[in-house]
Amino acid sequence: MSKIDLRPALSKMQPYTPGEQPPPGKYIKLNTNENPYPPPPSVVSALQAAASGPLNRYPDPTATAFRRAAANALGLPGPEWILAGNGSDEILTILVRAFVGEGQLLRLPYPSYILYRTLADIQGARWEQMPFLDGWHLPTAFGQGSDDLRLVLLPNPNSPSGTIVSRDEIEKLANTLPCPLVVDEAYADFAEFNCIDLVQKHENILVTRTLSKSYGLAGVRFGFLVAQPQLIKKLCNIKDSYNCDYLATIAATEAMNAQDWLADVVKKMNATRARMQLRLSELGFNVTPSQANFVWCQHPSGKHNEMYQYLKKQQILVRYMDFPDWGDGLRISVGTDDQVDACLMMLERFFQ
Amino acid sequence: MSKIDLRPALSKMQPYTPGEQPPPGKYIKLNTNENPYPPPPSVVSALQAAASGPLNRYPDPTATAFRRAAANALGLPGPEWILAGNGSDEILTILVRAFVGEGQLLRLPYPSYILYRTLADIQGARWEQMPFLDGWHLPTAFGQGSDDLRLVLLPNPNSPSGTIVSRDEIEKLANTLPCPLVVDEAYADFAEFNCIDLVQKHENILVTRTLSKSYGLAGVRFGFLVAQPQLIKKLCNIKDSYNCDYLATIAATEAMNAQDWLADVVKKMNATRARMQLRLSELGFNVTPSQANFVWCQHPSGKHNEMYQYLKKQQILVRYMDFPDWGDGLRISVGTDDQVDACLMMLERFFQ
Repeated sequence: MSKIDLRPALSKMQPYTPGEQPPPGKYIKLNTNENPYPPPPSVVSALQAAASGPLNRYPDPTATAFRRAAANALGLPGPEWILAGNGSDEILTILVRAFVGEGQLLRLPYPSYILYRTLADIQGARWEQMPFLDGWHLPTAFGQGSDDLRLVLLPNPNSPSGTIVSRDEIEKLANTLPCPLVVDEAYADFAEFNCIDLVQKHENILVTRTLSKSYGLAGVRFGFLVAQPQLIKKLCNIKDSYNCDYLATIAATEAMNAQDWLADVVKKMNATRARMQLRLSELGFNVTPSQANFVWCQHPSGKHNEMYQYLKKQQILVRYMDFPDWGDGLRISVGTDDQVDACLMMLERFFQ
Repeated sequence: MSKIDLRPALSKMQPYTPGEQPPPGKYIKLNTNENPYPPPPSVVSALQAAASGPLNRYPDPTATAFRRAAANALGLPGPEWILAGNGSDEILTILVRAFVGEGQLLRLPYPSYILYRTLADIQGARWEQMPFLDGWHLPTAFGQGSDDLRLVLLPNPNSPSGTIVSRDEIEKLANTLPCPLVVDEAYADFAEFNCIDLVQKHENILVTRTLSKSYGLAGVRFGFLVAQPQLIKKLCNIKDSYNCDYLATIAATEAMNAQDWLADVVKKMNATRARMQLRLSELGFNVTPSQANFVWCQHPSGKHNEMYQYLKKQQILVRYMDFPDWGDGLRISVGTDDQVDACLMMLERFFQ
């Protein structure tokens, strides 16, 4: 026993490993689903002006300006439906802390976003994974309550698959579940539909969003939760008092006001995604049709790790993922056309 | 029972209320111990340049550039002694999560920083307060272990008093305590000494710092922990993957490189503090000699709340604080000379 032993639950846990983040410029980065394009120009000029702003003063504790802009952009009744955070990672952390006590249960689908398990582990809670059915539907059991079940997390679109669960299916889950259903919509701007409006109909549907993907602001940590006002109010007491940086809040506010820019960049990236999917199929991959800014593909040769290593040697980073009892494959982010072409060319060369 | 009930521990807790944050410009703000001066000019120009940087890419998960600069500025052996966070609030949250499980115990002195109690409450843990002795020393019991004691928190300099516990006393506490002793040095740059070097001698002395006070960067959320490398490594697994904003990290790095600026601003503010203390004494206050960028004062009339309200009507915000079983008073931040003069003049008028 040492004087600096962590809680026993923490010494046993498996830490979450995000995708590699090499120093800028060395690699074509198609491994962490960042936007390959810079953020809206209005964001950059607002930040340049804000750099000489009141940095010596604490920021607005609840990022009111951002919440107003977001409510407006997303058609929500008002800012009281939104909780802003230091990336959607912080929002997820707050939700797990709010709902899941030591020994209690958190549920997620499989294969899916492994971070959820880490958040349960840190809390000293338990987690259970339920495999997707064929066609990326969820089993009925995913919507059933059980002793100690306190939170259900569903990335939609899902990672690594890029698939999406229908609004209908999500409403049914919310109806049968005895606890909150968090719909993690990190990639929703690239999808055909989303669930933001369902929050007004179901008190236990909670939607998380991030500025890191579609808005090109992964460097500026900002994410948010959409939920009913009575819940947002309670969650405010759990977050750190000043969790949102002054500059990040300005960037995020400007980004929410740039909906035309967003529509353009999503259109461009989804066109690139279609081309990626087609070409990967031609190379013999089984490509899962994607509603996100990445493509999940598996090759009959099974040489996914070799391809990952080969691409890395050519300065191209993709994500090799191996899900025990399910399978492995490559998750390739939608880059610029040039970046994607370079990646496809190298994959072609790999098979020659 | 509703589907969105929070953990029972959370429904009972008293939320932490930080000082008022009115919209900029309306008040002379002497209530939340911000630096009245803007941050170093090198920070502003670095931020202006960084605004057109790779905002679309995730930041360095461990803020390596910052940790190198901080290790250098603080005379630490290397960056592996530092954990960077989204304000020292996040660092404190990580520490409580790391060490204190549900039902376990956290200790703090009294009167002191009430946030620590909230952090214990959120965790479902218990807290105990031990009153300072005369002369702002700590009782022997403060250094004694007990069943379930997992973390001891000590702001040094303390708030609201601005007093400081000696290095000697802190080493003795660390020796007798069975758990980590967190020395919260948010205000240490304004003090005659600090404990950063003690971290190398005692594995259970952990020092937290913030960029919000002395460096004039409260808007840019950034704080850090100094602890032994084996602990820093473990705590990394508990933080969110990308907890430090790209721009905030650049600002914090430049700030650590601006040690001459820091020495100047501290000298200037400590001179203002001396003047404040003298004048407040002349107005009849009992002034606690301060080692921080604020002054705690109590008036024999006991009309602290009235003074607070009077000052607020004159557009001057100070902090009225009432500690049950101990007493109330005013905590006045060290502002610019002009701001402090305005506050002192109004207090003089209050007594006329």
